[in-house]
Amino acid sequence: MVSKVGIIGLGNVGSAVALALVLRGSVSELVLIDKDDKKARAEQYDLTDQQALLTSNTKILRQNYNDSWTLLKDCDVLVFSPGDISILQAQLQTDNPDRLNELRSSAQIVQEVAPKINASKFNGIILSITNPCDVVVTYLQELVDLPKNHIFGTGTTLDTTRMKHAVSAYLDCSIHDIDGYVLGEHGESQFTAWSTVRVGGIPMNDLAATHRIDLKVIEENSSKGAWYIISGKGFTSHGIGLTGATLVEAILNNARQVFPLSSYNTDYQTYIGQPTRIGAGGVLEVLPLTLSDTEQELFDHSAKIVRENRLKIPSLLAVDPVL
Amino acid sequence: MVSKVGIIGLGNVGSAVALALVLRGSVSELVLIDKDDKKARAEQYDLTDQQALLTSNTKILRQNYNDSWTLLKDCDVLVFSPGDISILQAQLQTDNPDRLNELRSSAQIVQEVAPKINASKFNGIILSITNPCDVVVTYLQELVDLPKNHIFGTGTTLDTTRMKHAVSAYLDCSIHDIDGYVLGEHGESQFTAWSTVRVGGIPMNDLAATHRIDLKVIEENSSKGAWYIISGKGFTSHGIGLTGATLVEAILNNARQVFPLSSYNTDYQTYIGQPTRIGAGGVLEVLPLTLSDTEQELFDHSAKIVRENRLKIPSLLAVDPVL
Amino acid sequence: MVSKVGIIGLGNVGSAVALALVLRGSVSELVLIDKDDKKARAEQYDLTDQQALLTSNTKILRQNYNDSWTLLKDCDVLVFSPGDISILQAQLQTDNPDRLNELRSSAQIVQEVAPKINASKFNGIILSITNPCDVVVTYLQELVDLPKNHIFGTGTTLDTTRMKHAVSAYLDCSIHDIDGYVLGEHGESQFTAWSTVRVGGIPMNDLAATHRIDLKVIEENSSKGAWYIISGKGFTSHGIGLTGATLVEAILNNARQVFPLSSYNTDYQTYIGQPTRIGAGGVLEVLPLTLSDTEQELFDHSAKIVRENRLKIPSLLAVDPVL
Amino acid sequence: MVSKVGIIGLGNVGSAVALALVLRGSVSELVLIDKDDKKARAEQYDLTDQQALLTSNTKILRQNYNDSWTLLKDCDVLVFSPGDISILQAQLQTDNPDRLNELRSSAQIVQEVAPKINASKFNGIILSITNPCDVVVTYLQELVDLPKNHIFGTGTTLDTTRMKHAVSAYLDCSIHDIDGYVLGEHGESQFTAWSTVRVGGIPMNDLAATHRIDLKVIEENSSKGAWYIISGKGFTSHGIGLTGATLVEAILNNARQVFPLSSYNTDYQTYIGQPTRIGAGGVLEVLPLTLSDTEQELFDHSAKIVRENRLKIPSLLAVDPVL
Repeated sequence: MVSKVGIIGLGNVGSAVALALVLRGSVSELVLIDKDDKKARAEQYDLTDQQALLTSNTKILRQNYNDSWTLLKDCDVLVFSPGDISILQAQLQTDNPDRLNELRSSAQIVQEVAPKINASKFNGIILSITNPCDVVVTYLQELVDLPKNHIFGTGTTLDTTRMKHAVSAYLDCSIHDIDGYVLGEHGESQFTAWSTVRVGGIPMNDLAATHRIDLKVIEENSSKGAWYIISGKGFTSHGIGLTGATLVEAILNNARQVFPLSSYNTDYQTYIGQPTRIGAGGVLEVLPLTLSDTEQELFDHSAKIVRENRLKIPSLLAVDPVL
Repeated sequence: MVSKVGIIGLGNVGSAVALALVLRGSVSELVLIDKDDKKARAEQYDLTDQQALLTSNTKILRQNYNDSWTLLKDCDVLVFSPGDISILQAQLQTDNPDRLNELRSSAQIVQEVAPKINASKFNGIILSITNPCDVVVTYLQELVDLPKNHIFGTGTTLDTTRMKHAVSAYLDCSIHDIDGYVLGEHGESQFTAWSTVRVGGIPMNDLAATHRIDLKVIEENSSKGAWYIISGKGFTSHGIGLTGATLVEAILNNARQVFPLSSYNTDYQTYIGQPTRIGAGGVLEVLPLTLSDTEQELFDHSAKIVRENRLKIPSLLAVDPVL
Repeated sequence: MVSKVGIIGLGNVGSAVALALVLRGSVSELVLIDKDDKKARAEQYDLTDQQALLTSNTKILRQNYNDSWTLLKDCDVLVFSPGDISILQAQLQTDNPDRLNELRSSAQIVQEVAPKINASKFNGIILSITNPCDVVVTYLQELVDLPKNHIFGTGTTLDTTRMKHAVSAYLDCSIHDIDGYVLGEHGESQFTAWSTVRVGGIPMNDLAATHRIDLKVIEENSSKGAWYIISGKGFTSHGIGLTGATLVEAILNNARQVFPLSSYNTDYQTYIGQPTRIGAGGVLEVLPLTLSDTEQELFDHSAKIVRENRLKIPSLLAVDPVL
Repeated sequence: MVSKVGIIGLGNVGSAVALALVLRGSVSELVLIDKDDKKARAEQYDLTDQQALLTSNTKILRQNYNDSWTLLKDCDVLVFSPGDISILQAQLQTDNPDRLNELRSSAQIVQEVAPKINASKFNGIILSITNPCDVVVTYLQELVDLPKNHIFGTGTTLDTTRMKHAVSAYLDCSIHDIDGYVLGEHGESQFTAWSTVRVGGIPMNDLAATHRIDLKVIEENSSKGAWYIISGKGFTSHGIGLTGATLVEAILNNARQVFPLSSYNTDYQTYIGQPTRIGAGGVLEVLPLTLSDTEQELFDHSAKIVRENRLKIPSLLAVDPVL
């Protein structure tokens, strides 16, 4: 009855997911876990400060880091969002960043945290957000005692919203009129599957043809959006916060709804962003794709990159990180 | 018809107010103004990234800092939340902070921004959040072309929530069962008016007597809460964000509702945290207080401090800040 | 995890509770039970028609009346709201209604339905709304296999809202500024405990004294409100609908919050409207009352009436109802 | 700033729209107008009974019918929902109903009310719900002093939700995965434009082919749904209530969003259900349709029926209604 959700990692992302869940009154109990005990306590108090102005009641639970894992045992959902923001921010300082630094750091976190999740006897659904999303959720699934359909990542859900934003801004219409998907890696190799995009029901490819719209420009605007946020704030929070909260709610309420999530693809033997139906049982179904030839190539390419990066983890973890 | 709200200053506080307004779909148009153009653009994009997952439509408007003031002209409400977080964070590093540094910095900001607000022909209601709240709103009102009842500060609204949190945590009950006020300066001299506090309708003073509750302990817990947040996160956001959004909504919907806001007190000739009814016309009424003698002394004392700090502004602005 | 709530009786009240729960996205699964199969199906379809315009997902379950009880087994909360609206409406046609007609009809419904609830192995919390509320919940608890703290009635929660409405309308202020209770029977013998009522923290008795307010007038306005609704629409729905939904949410989220509910009073050996703390475990605590002497007399009198009416049930059920 | 919405006609539909608007806190002021003064007062009180349990503040305004029109002057939106439910219910009693009875009655209402709207100097946007929707909104526009793009009807928005419900029930997936339109008359001649329908992005026509789905069956289920509601409850309320509220909010917030509304079609010279973008300025754009040949024929046929019915009004109004 009482719904219970845990969040591991209270950086800007985990904090934003927690905020959206409390503001919307979506969960009965929220467990906060962070290596920085003071950070977790700060979030607990800051989140609770909202309660008097709402009509809902969300109990925020927290203990010292080492003791907090027992709180996960009866959680329905676990949001996995730890990460080292300093690596991302360091990459912003250079024109030629070593993108593997982030993977190395995240893989180390997975190595450290997965055994604790297993020891907690947590037996619900994991939503993984930590970047690089697809590789991390692939690796995390290997290390935790849960089947593949009980873990998935946010994938290209946020990228899809950004694409919708870029399209609606270009056409000056409501973002709610746009549907379709960004697919593939939540990273550089992602792509907008324009064959799936419609505006008020009109295929975007048709609109582009009749109105001479250069879809490349819109896709670039969409990428720029993410860059504007990270370079302007140093991190992203609002968008990913509501994305995480929405997905948690979809699990809790057994929504059986489709989102472009990072779920396991048996063809590519990796997690990758694809239309995925989720509910109380986690991943219920991966929808078949009918992409254009070009889009299919982009998807193959993207999955290959995720798979390759997954295979790099052992060597990355063998050497000391040079930051 | 279309409601339009501006926010000046997109630090953690302004950003959190914007987030809550967008998540709740409370306004039609939101104008973002910040000296840091990239920061404003980042917030615009991060806030918009939420839209596709909501059913509401909030248009986020932004221009370069110097051009953005014209957007204020037809705003209904203006949230004033600029501030220099580095000063607050510097104070955390020392046991003996010079609290006047924050006032000096904020007074400089008021001096700089007030003429721009006047030039914009803004003619709505200002909600001021920048600290030290009571002195800043007093000074701001003097410099902008708006009557006293068209400007007020968040006052002790957030402190009152924190008190409610501390009481409900102590008694293990819902925060919604607690009513009553923290009054006075949003700062060190504030106090819980225990004579106004009730739990499920039972006067807290009675409960304290029969259950041997030391109210000092609860009041200390409440203060600790604020300290936990600032020392653990480096800033506060969630609580003040929803506080700001709730007050904006109360103005927009002409709520005629009472909150412990920083409004003008004619006896003390200063703004100070006191029960204040607000609506579309701003401050509609300041409620008379019937405090105990001790509480009245605390209130007098607190108002005196705010007044004194207001009088220090000229000398603070005359010298260079030493940070 | 997945929250499941059943509603027995889909008249105007049950339908309104269902509506508020679906609109607010508060439950994962909603079970609808009504003797009129076509009515239940109509509600199921009408409620589902909302879903596409919301972001939530509520599954509406229904079967033929006789088969539907198995759906209750794993429900967390059961709303009991069957009733014969024709009796209420018949009473509106006469100046001298026999108020026992409604009790007789409701007691028959309880006799019929309670064994079905028992047979379903339902083991959650019952919220009873059917009128006369206090007698019905007393009788229902006797017939179902659940302890006294797992069943309670809406009591004077709605009457308290109406009192707040009447006070706020009289003083032209926000309804959110009023707190306090209407207590006793949800019926003619209820009374506003003016000693508990405050406006923005100011005791209503003080306000009445200084502003020469005749509290009797406000109390009459409050009663008139209920009469206006029933005589104008033939039934009440919106107010009781949100009241029911709010209480269901308080159970589901373990709110530990106080409402003036009809809970068991050991002194009077009956259910009666009194400040009652509820949560996932049902009734957690009945708050002690510190009423004025007059108020205490009214409360005694009211409880006595409920008790007497409870004792009339056997004789009412022995004779055929004459409508 | 303060948003103000009027509702004419407080039957089940108008009451449901009002309820959804108040529950969602979408408007500052709501004006209720009904020929039955007691009904309007009942709704005012029943709606206000919800307020204490919400955090929003909606002022519900009402006067005696004849005096109430002055309240419309500064309304932003007007919901037109008067109707004679007894005619619909009488039709349920016969296998061979005269569908023109409803048109005659509604046309009389338009004749009576339109001059009052004109006299009120109302100058906002009208959302018309009264059935037969397309003919009524066509006739209403002719009689009120407002341009064609300032009036539109709910059209096939609710029918589209019902189609989505039927598809999602058939495929056991979330209703949020379905997009596409029901088009044409809100009545017997409407049709699902299957070429526009997608499930999680997959065209329904493709799904139907590969999974041997008989789309006729789904379309019949969808029609049955409406029939289940009307025959089981005697009226529809929840679905149309949220539909109306959503459209009001889209106007108030200038959503620039597309819904299948009854808007003016210059080719057919009538209002008809078609994808229509709305915002603060009313109808902003009618989207071009690219239907299959069969669908285009159905659309032509449907528009012809609406046009013919519009032309029958003079003769209908010339004779007395025989009910």
